[in-house]
Amino acid sequence: MGHLTEGNDELLKRVRRIAGQVTAIEKALAAGTDCTTTLHLVAATRGAINGLMDEIIEEHVRAHVAHPDLPAEERAAGAEELIAVIRRYAK
Amino acid sequence: MGHLTEGNDELLKRVRRIAGQVTAIEKALAAGTDCTTTLHLVAATRGAINGLMDEIIEEHVRAHVAHPDLPAEERAAGAEELIAVIRRYAK
Amino acid sequence: MGHLTEGNDELLKRVRRIAGQVTAIEKALAAGTDCTTTLHLVAATRGAINGLMDEIIEEHVRAHVAHPDLPAEERAAGAEELIAVIRRYAK
Amino acid sequence: MGHLTEGNDELLKRVRRIAGQVTAIEKALAAGTDCTTTLHLVAATRGAINGLMDEIIEEHVRAHVAHPDLPAEERAAGAEELIAVIRRYAK
Repeated sequence: MGHLTEGNDELLKRVRRIAGQVTAIEKALAAGTDCTTTLHLVAATRGAINGLMDEIIEEHVRAHVAHPDLPAEERAAGAEELIAVIRRYAK
Repeated sequence: MGHLTEGNDELLKRVRRIAGQVTAIEKALAAGTDCTTTLHLVAATRGAINGLMDEIIEEHVRAHVAHPDLPAEERAAGAEELIAVIRRYAK
Repeated sequence: MGHLTEGNDELLKRVRRIAGQVTAIEKALAAGTDCTTTLHLVAATRGAINGLMDEIIEEHVRAHVAHPDLPAEERAAGAEELIAVIRRYAK
Repeated sequence: MGHLTEGNDELLKRVRRIAGQVTAIEKALAAGTDCTTTLHLVAATRGAINGLMDEIIEEHVRAHVAHPDLPAEERAAGAEELIAVIRRYAK
């Protein structure tokens, strides 16, 4: 399964934004920012990470489960991977 | 989309177990049980509800996205519904 | 720790509403309702359970951690219980 | 509320580890790593962020709600902040 091809620009942009958010948390902690403000940054970062997970799962669905050109075996394998991921990571 | 056919016994058993857990929470609250014990019951019920969601999504994947006999259009529609559900309910 | 006294009407009302939501899920499954509709009911029930957890934790904070009349030892014990609950059940 | 003092080494270490995890996600995406592996990295990062949130909340409880030397007003304010955070960010 390798649908997340090199140059997946949209996902890369998302993860770089998340890296920026983590840097902001680090600065807030280093500066002794109050906890409510810091928590807000952390919660926003968690939201962005959840969005990244959803995006990766969506790409998997499109490329490896639902794509009309998939051979039956590959589709079945893609569906099993998807179900395993949902069981493991869906809160 | 109607794959959750009447007589879906496994899902019905799950939801009846959840109903029993909710009754246990009600009894704990009515009896003035301490909050740690009550929270444990509530958290276990939340876990069971998450399990039920995963199970329903899994059935949708098998019946409406991955099934080898689906016409292309139905498969595409099933995939879009799945993606909408993941975006809305994951986490 | 017994702050969830008998007659805690607000929490009891919440849990009875949740019981009604679980009954609606059961009916939807028994009637073969489509999975998107059923998932919506399940997700709403999960939201209500999360709300119930927050409410119970809030009552614990008010009665056993923050209350001005608490002896120091009881307050310390209430805080440790709270921290254990957050670690265990947050997310 | 400024309990997260400069030099809060433990929290800073956590957030730096999270930064490293985000870099690993970026590398995996750039290298076209398969989605299951990438999702595993993302899910582990989410877990670490949840742990950071719990840690910050715990420090707030100890410093601004439960500390024996707090004046009653500050304790009451700290408790209200805590309750607002739980309502907003729990789950």
